[in-house]
Amino acid sequence: MISILLNGCNGKMGQVVSKVAKNYNNIKIVAGVDLNTTKNFDYPVYKSPEEVVENFDVIIDFSLPEATMKILEFAKQKNKPVVIATTGFTSEQKSKIFECSKQIPIFWSANMSLGVNLVAELIQKAYKALGPSFDIEIIEKHHNQKIDSPSGTALMLADAINEVANNSYEYIYDRHTRRKKRQQNEIGIASIRGGTIVGEHSVIFAGPDEIIEIKHTALSKEIFANGAIKAAMFIEGKGAGIYNMKDLINSM
Amino acid sequence: MISILLNGCNGKMGQVVSKVAKNYNNIKIVAGVDLNTTKNFDYPVYKSPEEVVENFDVIIDFSLPEATMKILEFAKQKNKPVVIATTGFTSEQKSKIFECSKQIPIFWSANMSLGVNLVAELIQKAYKALGPSFDIEIIEKHHNQKIDSPSGTALMLADAINEVANNSYEYIYDRHTRRKKRQQNEIGIASIRGGTIVGEHSVIFAGPDEIIEIKHTALSKEIFANGAIKAAMFIEGKGAGIYNMKDLINSM
Amino acid sequence: MISILLNGCNGKMGQVVSKVAKNYNNIKIVAGVDLNTTKNFDYPVYKSPEEVVENFDVIIDFSLPEATMKILEFAKQKNKPVVIATTGFTSEQKSKIFECSKQIPIFWSANMSLGVNLVAELIQKAYKALGPSFDIEIIEKHHNQKIDSPSGTALMLADAINEVANNSYEYIYDRHTRRKKRQQNEIGIASIRGGTIVGEHSVIFAGPDEIIEIKHTALSKEIFANGAIKAAMFIEGKGAGIYNMKDLINSM
Amino acid sequence: MISILLNGCNGKMGQVVSKVAKNYNNIKIVAGVDLNTTKNFDYPVYKSPEEVVENFDVIIDFSLPEATMKILEFAKQKNKPVVIATTGFTSEQKSKIFECSKQIPIFWSANMSLGVNLVAELIQKAYKALGPSFDIEIIEKHHNQKIDSPSGTALMLADAINEVANNSYEYIYDRHTRRKKRQQNEIGIASIRGGTIVGEHSVIFAGPDEIIEIKHTALSKEIFANGAIKAAMFIEGKGAGIYNMKDLINSM
Repeated sequence: MISILLNGCNGKMGQVVSKVAKNYNNIKIVAGVDLNTTKNFDYPVYKSPEEVVENFDVIIDFSLPEATMKILEFAKQKNKPVVIATTGFTSEQKSKIFECSKQIPIFWSANMSLGVNLVAELIQKAYKALGPSFDIEIIEKHHNQKIDSPSGTALMLADAINEVANNSYEYIYDRHTRRKKRQQNEIGIASIRGGTIVGEHSVIFAGPDEIIEIKHTALSKEIFANGAIKAAMFIEGKGAGIYNMKDLINSM
Repeated sequence: MISILLNGCNGKMGQVVSKVAKNYNNIKIVAGVDLNTTKNFDYPVYKSPEEVVENFDVIIDFSLPEATMKILEFAKQKNKPVVIATTGFTSEQKSKIFECSKQIPIFWSANMSLGVNLVAELIQKAYKALGPSFDIEIIEKHHNQKIDSPSGTALMLADAINEVANNSYEYIYDRHTRRKKRQQNEIGIASIRGGTIVGEHSVIFAGPDEIIEIKHTALSKEIFANGAIKAAMFIEGKGAGIYNMKDLINSM
Repeated sequence: MISILLNGCNGKMGQVVSKVAKNYNNIKIVAGVDLNTTKNFDYPVYKSPEEVVENFDVIIDFSLPEATMKILEFAKQKNKPVVIATTGFTSEQKSKIFECSKQIPIFWSANMSLGVNLVAELIQKAYKALGPSFDIEIIEKHHNQKIDSPSGTALMLADAINEVANNSYEYIYDRHTRRKKRQQNEIGIASIRGGTIVGEHSVIFAGPDEIIEIKHTALSKEIFANGAIKAAMFIEGKGAGIYNMKDLINSM
Repeated sequence: MISILLNGCNGKMGQVVSKVAKNYNNIKIVAGVDLNTTKNFDYPVYKSPEEVVENFDVIIDFSLPEATMKILEFAKQKNKPVVIATTGFTSEQKSKIFECSKQIPIFWSANMSLGVNLVAELIQKAYKALGPSFDIEIIEKHHNQKIDSPSGTALMLADAINEVANNSYEYIYDRHTRRKKRQQNEIGIASIRGGTIVGEHSVIFAGPDEIIEIKHTALSKEIFANGAIKAAMFIEGKGAGIYNMKDLINSM
């Protein structure tokens, strides 16, 4: 049984983690930390980490950058591993995360979905096997309320290709302004917006007379909660350092 | 049995029509017209229509605008129907086509594929039923040698929606330059380019918790030849006027 | 403003209708009927229709066949239209529904999703245009807890084709047991089961070198509630008779 | 420059290899062997391998099992590597292939498409990361003239999963005969047949609220010729032994 301290427990994703955690026999949330101390689940909620009296094995952090910094200090004092699922850090804050990882184990991923991170792994493998004779295109689909495009995940996938391709690819978001053939070193990224689509990412390798497509479809935000819980199981017992979903996937 | 005079018989599409026509029991190409008078099939080839001695029922024209104008004059003299599958006319040439249609039956479609034209019909019907609460997005995919984007067919499909929507939609080709929510009156059009993809067009209606997608995939250019032949069968015996694929589909 | 009496208001779908109805300015649920009289929403709940004191315009029925029969009697007395979204009627019960429709307007559809019913319309139109030279195949996908296969909706779609094809198609659920070519008069129906997929139905028309695919994806059960509410708006003010989603779609 | 002896050069696939080879600067077919000795390309054709006078580096064999056995004997005498793309061997013949591989390098794959073999690799990696909580389903689509189902490639993909899953999965081809929930240890395999579809294989991992789909689409038979040529480049210079597409992919 792994006991969890949940930072940001009353936020949108904190509540999803609380709900999803009940599906795991070997996971128990023993306390939560949140500025809003309403007790929505069967664990006590504290305003700040110092008040927590329960013993715990791993911290899961789904909060805001400021709150993450605070919980990291607390984790260092207690010498406990942290799963960081919060996003939007400044580069200064990022440095501090790396700094902390010298003393405690930290799991940190821009996208907590196991599936999306697996897709990133698979497309790297596909790129290595197929090589530059296959053109790469990414299509992402999201609901009509999403403001930014392309999605951060689409860029993460494109970057994953570039990581194994010596950064030789440039990203093309619009083809209608130019009247010329596709270049080999392009990754086209198209953003579709409509209705209540939760999130879909498709990476297409189109070569001479064959196409390989690797596609991820999210049906709800629960997948990010599941990813965080799996990360907690993975990091428990590890030594100090930075870990991410790639390590988790390759450990399987 | 319908006998065909094929204008542009030695062009790329002319040759495909010649090959495909053999699959139809009730169709026979009796003569071809082309500047290149090589005899590639089992019918005679003439440099200009005036030289044709064979009797025929319908002209199929897969040539160039100049040649289309010439064959239209010839068709008027002979009082024969014409299927125009040539593209790229000036507005002056287009006027002349309409002019001729007062004397002879003319079948004229920007895209000769029965399937693509059916999709145009289906999305009009879908739009009328679903209304503006469903967001419309179009994705088209073509090979990496295609120069223009979006494809003419993607625009034809978007225009088909606008035709039944009082032209209330504007077309959006790139979302990455702006940081704002999708507007209701947008049709997003995304162009994917890669490998040897023949042609794919997908129209997505994404609404509250449900998505309807209508997709056309072309596997070869033969579909345009088949469309032209079906148009010849349709137009045979009709009175003077302009006909298109919509008429053909609705006659079925 | 259309006021609704909701039969089966505390059932699974009754609750979804109650939630979704709040999104409509011109719809108000004024009372509910259910054996379980817990008040979950802002309207009173009665054990039987006779107790209802509120005025209402339309009855929406998402209950069980027995309860539907009772509410129909009540609707006849009050001379009010009924939207029947309940399923699983015996043929005797079905006869009674038709019987009642001589006195009051009844909206009755096996599937209340506007999108699925639109797809049924679209594939009929596609079949008429494409004819028997296009092979028809249906793929449906649902979650791993679904017991029956194929889905009732997949059969409804296949039946929609047969309705316009003189019942000339037979349904094939398994090809691995036979070693022979596909026959023209087959509709293949494949059932995919996995994870938490809500519901996906795809109808494929595969012809000579082109494919047309019409696909419906459900993201939640709310679409059935939305369909029932739209049906209520449609049937209000109509004369006695049986109406269904096809009528609603064609009225748009 | 690698010089090739092509066994079965006038068969369907032999001719495709001859055509495709022209796209490779470092590949030259120097002679062909076939019972039909028509000279269709710019290399001489012999009835039997013993007559071949040209020097060559690698044999590509796209023939029939009997002819493969003969060419293997010849390869042993000449001490040359062989790429076997022929299928349909008896177990006795398979033993002989393994026997020969003790003396010469033999590249042998049931499916010569680089893409399909890559997909087999990717789904093994996906299975290891996702584990049994994701349900696995395979959909394959082929033209309406294909006699067998499921396709050999679909079975190859299912076997690839079983290879890394201790053969714990059983294959389900038809769900409509049984009225029960999907079991975890099933791989559903659905066969779609229609029109002129060249070949499509999709492997779906459907888990809790997320789906990963890995799909291969073949646009023509040239991909098998390209695979054989790449295999020839890979095996040239290797030592005796059996090699397959997995080795080729992992070498990239």
